[in-house]
Amino acid sequence: MTGGLGPTVDDVTTSTVAMVTGRRLVLDEGALRDLKGYFAICGRKMPRGNERQACVPEGARVLNNRVGTAPGLIIEHRKKAIICLPGPPRELQPMFDRAVAPYLRRRTGVSRVLKMRTIKTIGLPEAKVNRIVRDLLGLKPPTTVGIYAKLREVHLVIMAKAEDERSARPAIERIEKKVRERLGDYIFGYDDQTLEGVVASLLIRNKKTISVAESCTGGLISSRLTDTSGSSKYFIRGAVPYSNDVKIKYLGVSAGDLRRYGAVSRQVALQMAANIRSLMGVDIGIGVTGIAGPTGGTRRKPVGLVYIAIAHGGKNLVKEFRFRGSRQDVKWQTSQAALDIIRRNIKFRV
Amino acid sequence: MTGGLGPTVDDVTTSTVAMVTGRRLVLDEGALRDLKGYFAICGRKMPRGNERQACVPEGARVLNNRVGTAPGLIIEHRKKAIICLPGPPRELQPMFDRAVAPYLRRRTGVSRVLKMRTIKTIGLPEAKVNRIVRDLLGLKPPTTVGIYAKLREVHLVIMAKAEDERSARPAIERIEKKVRERLGDYIFGYDDQTLEGVVASLLIRNKKTISVAESCTGGLISSRLTDTSGSSKYFIRGAVPYSNDVKIKYLGVSAGDLRRYGAVSRQVALQMAANIRSLMGVDIGIGVTGIAGPTGGTRRKPVGLVYIAIAHGGKNLVKEFRFRGSRQDVKWQTSQAALDIIRRNIKFRV
Repeated sequence: MTGGLGPTVDDVTTSTVAMVTGRRLVLDEGALRDLKGYFAICGRKMPRGNERQACVPEGARVLNNRVGTAPGLIIEHRKKAIICLPGPPRELQPMFDRAVAPYLRRRTGVSRVLKMRTIKTIGLPEAKVNRIVRDLLGLKPPTTVGIYAKLREVHLVIMAKAEDERSARPAIERIEKKVRERLGDYIFGYDDQTLEGVVASLLIRNKKTISVAESCTGGLISSRLTDTSGSSKYFIRGAVPYSNDVKIKYLGVSAGDLRRYGAVSRQVALQMAANIRSLMGVDIGIGVTGIAGPTGGTRRKPVGLVYIAIAHGGKNLVKEFRFRGSRQDVKWQTSQAALDIIRRNIKFRV
Repeated sequence: MTGGLGPTVDDVTTSTVAMVTGRRLVLDEGALRDLKGYFAICGRKMPRGNERQACVPEGARVLNNRVGTAPGLIIEHRKKAIICLPGPPRELQPMFDRAVAPYLRRRTGVSRVLKMRTIKTIGLPEAKVNRIVRDLLGLKPPTTVGIYAKLREVHLVIMAKAEDERSARPAIERIEKKVRERLGDYIFGYDDQTLEGVVASLLIRNKKTISVAESCTGGLISSRLTDTSGSSKYFIRGAVPYSNDVKIKYLGVSAGDLRRYGAVSRQVALQMAANIRSLMGVDIGIGVTGIAGPTGGTRRKPVGLVYIAIAHGGKNLVKEFRFRGSRQDVKWQTSQAALDIIRRNIKFRV
């Protein structure tokens, strides 16, 4: 079970398990030490109440929580195992992987696996990916393929049931090869890889530095580019030049072009990219301007209209997009498209 | 049921429902019009394959999808209703609120309600909020109070079961009044309100402009400040001065102080806030510097150490924080703390 291990009065998991299994609650010295350590690192005194979290049913195995205060518990009772984990996914998931999965494997002696391989594409609509891999989607167990659409990403998941890890591999590799041949450079990554992580690796591997001038995304592209540890190697500066004044004064965008074409235009996006590049002396400059909505759209320039420009090695390029959805959706799709433009530019020079 | 309404071959919900209920699939003209309209607005041609999504079991009521391509369906069959909704939460939720909830109320004649009121606090640990409202957390139905912790936020949810909306109100208001008296200015909002939304309203209402110089958050604070439509009224510029060079050259941070105290220090945060404020000629300047990790920490300056400074009306202020968790967690908690500092500064002049 998950949740109810916190310090508050409606957190009753531990006491309920103790009651049901007829055990006393005892203070676990290890759990108390972890708890005090957690607050020490945060530079705070442990609030009263929190000690409760170190009280566990007698005989329970305590699972250390490295990102929160609630320890996990494994209680073996009448040949059954009761497993209690904290509720927040960011606390639960690492604890499950580190302690619970190995415990269950040992306990059950089961080695049969369901192996998954996720192949992630960007830039193609779901219906198009579907047409390209239609035959694979019809496969029957033990090896199947599923398709999942996210905002601008489409993921293919190959699943293979097998006796163990090793015997699942050939079936997955055979299908993966086909998918790679058909989807080529629309594939940006695999499994846990993120688009921002892939772009970060490309920048580091190719020793490229980058600056971003982004208007409608308001810092989101910069934020995603710095989600990777060590991003100071490649990320020099983000600028969020929201007003026209700032675009003119600090980014050197032509006031005449702003009047003539408007802030949301190919011309302004290109100037933002080229100017931040030369201003910061970096390899790659990105310029983004658009209408995130829900207000601010017109007939000629509707909400969701976005221009993304890249300046790299003397070659400047701008693309027009029309996104749909809420303000947050438009911002997210814009950041997706911008990261993909960086990826393609470094990897394929397009 | 939800999901399986997409254009791909593994989307089998519609055809399965047709088969089970013995109905033919027919092309729904309204759904086709919506679908074409969707792609027209996106400036794309509708891919083949996608027409499938306008084929529905004969006699089905079609629910318009305003943010995606898959329409919802209500099929009344042998006095039962089969309701099919798209899988993505952002498509499903508005469709449920707009069409399904009213349909179910009409169909069942049930008016009995579960009314919820969420009160959102920031800056207090969960255990402390718990102590303050402990008596309320012990309440029994029909009116109960739950407590939920997020990163730096703690939410209290009051739930009242009643015959109708109106008779649920007094019980909720009575408890809400107590919570407000006890938690005071730790409360930043209610129900669907977000911290960034509340800060945006405060900036607009008080006619304040703001600029952010953020290092370790990499644009996240700027991005959240511009998540509100109309943010160009108050948001002048975000800067992400990642490198020391940029901090010196464009933000005028003292090179001597950078050497003496390091980039992650009270002094540098204060200078970033004060300098971006005067540079941009805005009312409020924010300076943020820290170590987001997982690398880059030292014994004296561990991962999670963050300084947030605010410069506003001649009064400058800096706060030290020690956050825990992944790089993304540290970034998010930093943005939470920064937004709260802005909120308190405008609202309570602290």
